[in-house]
Amino acid sequence: MMKIASVETIPFSIPYKRTVSFGNVKQTHAEHVLVRVRTDGGLIGQAEAPARPFVYGESQTSIVNAIRDWFAPAIQGLDALRVEAIYERMTGVAGNHAARGAIDLAVWDIIGKTLGQPCRKLLGGYTNSLRASELLNYGEPGQMVAHAMEMRQRYGISAFKIKTGRAVKLDVAACIAIRESLPDAELYIDSNHGWTADEAIQFARQTADLGLSFYEEPSPAEDRIGRKRLNQSAAIPIGGDESCTRLSDVARELTDGIAHMISIKTARTGFTESRRILGLCEGLSAPVVMGSQGDSMVGTLGTLNFGAAFRLSSIRPAEVTNFLELSDDLLINPLIIADGRLNATDGPGLGIEIDEGKLKRYRIDQ
Amino acid sequence: MMKIASVETIPFSIPYKRTVSFGNVKQTHAEHVLVRVRTDGGLIGQAEAPARPFVYGESQTSIVNAIRDWFAPAIQGLDALRVEAIYERMTGVAGNHAARGAIDLAVWDIIGKTLGQPCRKLLGGYTNSLRASELLNYGEPGQMVAHAMEMRQRYGISAFKIKTGRAVKLDVAACIAIRESLPDAELYIDSNHGWTADEAIQFARQTADLGLSFYEEPSPAEDRIGRKRLNQSAAIPIGGDESCTRLSDVARELTDGIAHMISIKTARTGFTESRRILGLCEGLSAPVVMGSQGDSMVGTLGTLNFGAAFRLSSIRPAEVTNFLELSDDLLINPLIIADGRLNATDGPGLGIEIDEGKLKRYRIDQ
Repeated sequence: MMKIASVETIPFSIPYKRTVSFGNVKQTHAEHVLVRVRTDGGLIGQAEAPARPFVYGESQTSIVNAIRDWFAPAIQGLDALRVEAIYERMTGVAGNHAARGAIDLAVWDIIGKTLGQPCRKLLGGYTNSLRASELLNYGEPGQMVAHAMEMRQRYGISAFKIKTGRAVKLDVAACIAIRESLPDAELYIDSNHGWTADEAIQFARQTADLGLSFYEEPSPAEDRIGRKRLNQSAAIPIGGDESCTRLSDVARELTDGIAHMISIKTARTGFTESRRILGLCEGLSAPVVMGSQGDSMVGTLGTLNFGAAFRLSSIRPAEVTNFLELSDDLLINPLIIADGRLNATDGPGLGIEIDEGKLKRYRIDQ
Repeated sequence: MMKIASVETIPFSIPYKRTVSFGNVKQTHAEHVLVRVRTDGGLIGQAEAPARPFVYGESQTSIVNAIRDWFAPAIQGLDALRVEAIYERMTGVAGNHAARGAIDLAVWDIIGKTLGQPCRKLLGGYTNSLRASELLNYGEPGQMVAHAMEMRQRYGISAFKIKTGRAVKLDVAACIAIRESLPDAELYIDSNHGWTADEAIQFARQTADLGLSFYEEPSPAEDRIGRKRLNQSAAIPIGGDESCTRLSDVARELTDGIAHMISIKTARTGFTESRRILGLCEGLSAPVVMGSQGDSMVGTLGTLNFGAAFRLSSIRPAEVTNFLELSDDLLINPLIIADGRLNATDGPGLGIEIDEGKLKRYRIDQ
């Protein structure tokens, strides 16, 4: 028995190397929260809760408060191995995905440390590395090409997610330029609902020969008729991400034919809900992409442990490179992308070893 | 690392207390196979493979051969913790569900023994007991009532699955008699596809006020138009069992609206595929019943460990009483149904401790 005794939250802010845009919003710092769950035996499980105010409505403050006021009291005294019971106790509160997800990940970290196994092995142990996909953020086509080429050269990355959702003409030009420079790369796009359905249809017509793998959230998921028109005119799978933040969302988008593949982010559904989503996707024959919620190396270890654990989640390139955008990070042993892959270590739990000096430097509550 | 070194199969036959009918077939013995997976470190994981020739096409011989010729060679040398990789290696062969399922369960038994935890805790740890449901097999209404009353008195059981699929008049009479004797019991029926859709509709009309919870496989699942007519006329959930032996079957039956709830049997989908099915069911809001494949106490421990591990699988009464039909069993410490529940122990893995003397007596290969 390892009973959950308390939960500590440490908001921290690490500057990005350069200002980053999420959708239409710019951020200078990664504003995240380190969550530490303690057992009565003194074991500590850790995880990262990344705030994404403009997509999910969470902030560092809301995460700290939700955990202090709602989630920590709800799970106190429960055996850490009882993840299904712990998760259920946290479903009484709507939203607050990153706060809930981080507690679940931290509990899994405790389990792995207790049992002396990496979480990926406890979850299913399918493989021990993931192919990495790099995000090509908004820029002039030439800048985006240069970014991709640099990533290929430095890290061996050959899978890229191209941010789209701007003027179709500019997006098309960027995609053509990237494809010409990287004829063999896996390319897919993400518009974060930025286009109308008609713009997405125009884009599809003009890029039909570029071999793009899929479109993530090309147009608003709420415009369901528009999505269906897009589906009928473009023979390309549609990926659900921000429209699929919970299991029930995934079920709706897949069974309605609005999305055909799903982005799983452990930052929002932890491991416990993520594996339900994975079962649903496997049953409905929907491919899965392990996505990033702007994770630092800490959160990336959650993505890596889950993605590598299962067959279905390890097939497609995973979005595990976001930490390269940060000017610094919190791990003692930095993660390394090499030959286009991120390799897991055999440390127990999530494998998170925090550099306390760096945490002290970047925490904003002291 | 605990590499899988070998798999042993021991067919055994234990007499039933009285001849049992499965669907329309009668059996005097439980003809099952004990599966033992050995690691290079000498650890042994065990599970039961129950043959059900007339439902699933497997026999003791086919199970022994499938494991010797196909499954054991496919998984040899793999780390036992890599259940997702082990399961994938076994998907190259069609059918043979009990053989495949038993290996998966035995591998999970190894994992639990290695980590010193009961499987139910490693899977999710939701609860530690299941409410038991007893099968009321074919008989005259008076016999079926007597059986139910005895089970209630001896074991506190208050949930019953009534075998139907005979002449509707007889089935209706049995259900009315049982309901009159047990006004507060949870009652549901299982016809094993025995009625036509029209017979099921007749039955539904005549028992609308009996408060039956659901119909398991009332009419042939292959008669999909008939099932849909039944769905339109009877406001009662339909359970899928033998039409849902794999994840893809479950997805088809649920998304087509042919079944609304699902019987999960660890004897056929182990833990690894069962948890995918559970995620699918949770996503599609389909209730789950933990079913029995005629398990002895050995197999029942698989059902118990999985059912108790998750919220969704522990809600409904589980079919964990079949061992009461057997004249003897293989466990050193017999399972006990009390107050209508089956309680889990805290032994590691599946908690199977085989009485070697009894195994010697009932094995049929020496």
